[in-house]
Amino acid sequence: MNTIKVGILGLGTVGSGVVKVLTQNAGIIRHKVGCNVEVEKILVKNPDKKRSSALGNITHKITSDATEILDNPEIKIVVEVMGGIEVARDYILHALENGKHVVTANKDLVSLYGKELFNAASKNKCDLFFEASVAGGIPIIRPLKECLAGNKIYKVMGIINGTTNYILTKMTKEGKQYEETLLKAQSLGYAESDPTADVEGYDAARKIAILASIAFGTRVTYQDVYVEGITNITARDIEYAKELGYAIKLLGIAKEEHDEVEVRVHPVFIPTNHPLSSVDDVFNAVFVEGDAVGETMFYGQGAGEFPTASAVVGDIISASRNIYHGNTGRICCTCFEQKKVKSIEDITSEFYIRLNVIDRPGVLASIAGVFGNQEVSLASVVQKRTENHKAEVVLITHRVKEGYVRDALKILDGMSIVDEISNVVRVEGGNRK
Amino acid sequence: MNTIKVGILGLGTVGSGVVKVLTQNAGIIRHKVGCNVEVEKILVKNPDKKRSSALGNITHKITSDATEILDNPEIKIVVEVMGGIEVARDYILHALENGKHVVTANKDLVSLYGKELFNAASKNKCDLFFEASVAGGIPIIRPLKECLAGNKIYKVMGIINGTTNYILTKMTKEGKQYEETLLKAQSLGYAESDPTADVEGYDAARKIAILASIAFGTRVTYQDVYVEGITNITARDIEYAKELGYAIKLLGIAKEEHDEVEVRVHPVFIPTNHPLSSVDDVFNAVFVEGDAVGETMFYGQGAGEFPTASAVVGDIISASRNIYHGNTGRICCTCFEQKKVKSIEDITSEFYIRLNVIDRPGVLASIAGVFGNQEVSLASVVQKRTENHKAEVVLITHRVKEGYVRDALKILDGMSIVDEISNVVRVEGGNRK
Repeated sequence: MNTIKVGILGLGTVGSGVVKVLTQNAGIIRHKVGCNVEVEKILVKNPDKKRSSALGNITHKITSDATEILDNPEIKIVVEVMGGIEVARDYILHALENGKHVVTANKDLVSLYGKELFNAASKNKCDLFFEASVAGGIPIIRPLKECLAGNKIYKVMGIINGTTNYILTKMTKEGKQYEETLLKAQSLGYAESDPTADVEGYDAARKIAILASIAFGTRVTYQDVYVEGITNITARDIEYAKELGYAIKLLGIAKEEHDEVEVRVHPVFIPTNHPLSSVDDVFNAVFVEGDAVGETMFYGQGAGEFPTASAVVGDIISASRNIYHGNTGRICCTCFEQKKVKSIEDITSEFYIRLNVIDRPGVLASIAGVFGNQEVSLASVVQKRTENHKAEVVLITHRVKEGYVRDALKILDGMSIVDEISNVVRVEGGNRK
Repeated sequence: MNTIKVGILGLGTVGSGVVKVLTQNAGIIRHKVGCNVEVEKILVKNPDKKRSSALGNITHKITSDATEILDNPEIKIVVEVMGGIEVARDYILHALENGKHVVTANKDLVSLYGKELFNAASKNKCDLFFEASVAGGIPIIRPLKECLAGNKIYKVMGIINGTTNYILTKMTKEGKQYEETLLKAQSLGYAESDPTADVEGYDAARKIAILASIAFGTRVTYQDVYVEGITNITARDIEYAKELGYAIKLLGIAKEEHDEVEVRVHPVFIPTNHPLSSVDDVFNAVFVEGDAVGETMFYGQGAGEFPTASAVVGDIISASRNIYHGNTGRICCTCFEQKKVKSIEDITSEFYIRLNVIDRPGVLASIAGVFGNQEVSLASVVQKRTENHKAEVVLITHRVKEGYVRDALKILDGMSIVDEISNVVRVEGGNRK
């Protein structure tokens, strides 16, 4: 075998990065695989668009006809970096049916249709790799599937969205409000003009669904994930977090206990001595806990042209090695079990709760009483006088079932002494050895 | 295939961990491999020694005769966790010649005889895996060989010795001297009674030799590594480090530039905003920089029964998958090139230099003059009066060739105004984007 030919679906940011890395590191890659790995065709929407000269001379490789890749017997590996769901899914299934190995960076697709895609790959003895779909350049899928394969994984928890981590980092460092910081992030290109998928946590939800599926060996889809974004986090919450020894981060969290899993995305208070607390700006990190390995963390750039291309090209190399050695489709879907996904009311956590209350004697006792009656025990209470006879009360609870906290908050919300339940944020990452 | 049988050489801490993890997670492992993976025989020195009940009933598996493993046709995978060099080497070569796949945790061996072992593995189409030889449970070898395979790696730099990181962390947090902290580390079992291999950096040197070989695709052996330990680091140096915005860490450092590599182990000043600076206690972390992925870091427990067993069992699973799919010996030695290893005089770095000098007018100018004449430019200077007309001068240089600094120090050492060159520590990890 002299050359393994690759077809690329899409030539946006990631596609361009893949072309550049395959070209600039062709020598290294040839050494590692045993033969050349070359781009044969690239599917684009508009073949006449002017392309960056950094891509080299690719004019003859450009096509707007997907079948030139999907039905091309010369092409062994199809790289899907076009994004979107339905068309990408059709193309990938088509490629797999034609016996082509597939590398995708498409978290939306994998987190929704993973099962269908893996079944198709398995049926056709094809590789289907997706390292780039979670946390960009950070190696996390393969380490989970291979290096840590001997562990029973208890917990996977990560900063897996750079936009929100950038916003929260800036809010923390500059003491500014969310809206202002979002505008700045947008002006710097760190947030999109419609930032919904990032700031509401949907992007992170797709990634944690993928990680949970691999870690616990059970299919978790995007729809299984409980999601809250960061839009309610205020400068005031961040101030309290600092005062109490925490950072606020948007985490994807997946845990398994007694064969039940919980999978969620929401802002958390995380102690400043936790390794995730100092992962700042657009950096991502995934923290994994297993019965043998203990605590481990994977850190790096979770997005961008080259980091994402690093993951895609790593997968292309793996598929190429398998092709070269005539042994593809070895490690496919690892969801052997069917575990129940817990409802959010059934998870346990500590909670930060900020209330605005009437400032008069006995109010704190009443509030504490409500929590006590709902089995919510309090770890710490800070009360600050604000103005107009109002006080702000900040509570941190002990670990408690979320349902109990919700019940207590419902009662408090109906009480005349409570002006406002200003915010509720879960606390994660405490009680580390 | 119903069962893949494993022979284990050695039943110390790591061997025991491997037996326990293979047993407790047998179900998970069977799912992932496609068949059972079972321990068949365990080589020990003293078969009559009482073993922990946590190992289960292993009496019938114990042997003191290595050939019962090495020449046993039933056994497909040999796990070498006995340590030492010559005997381990003979056993591994014997196993490979018999077509057995080998998993080893032996950094001493791999960093010295890697080439010979990989050649033997390659000749026999056998797998030879050694994830546990560097940084215990942290996945780093496979991520480098596979996930990051598309990168040109520029730099690998890590805290890869838990003992010294524990000592430096305690010295930093408690302001205590080295000797006292070492005694405490010994009493807690974090340092051995003869701590030489750890505190002099020899252990870290073996690991960075292995990492450099993989990262740069050129064979780097233990003998190529420049090594300094932590025994000269004083509480006073740590105090200055803090004052100047640094932490002191013992790092293994490997870099490549213009097809030349530098590989070294020594204490460094590292800026407190660098991700490695907050890796404390016995934790390890490896920081990798590549042209596509940018900065990435792998964090976790670098030693201990279960973390190390996590890496060994991950390798056993990989070898088992390869056996199950009839495709072993695919990714072997990746040292395709022969790159020159630079001498320490030729590396460039910033330097922290602490001097004791006579406190009289003009002294600082004379010292600065010496550095200037040797092409060493100074980034910052702190002078403190001590007592008896002596002053302490602390300098941080700009990036400069080490040879020039050594020349300057030789001249200073001969000057009557210089009482003592108290310490010189390289500065790493500055100038990050």
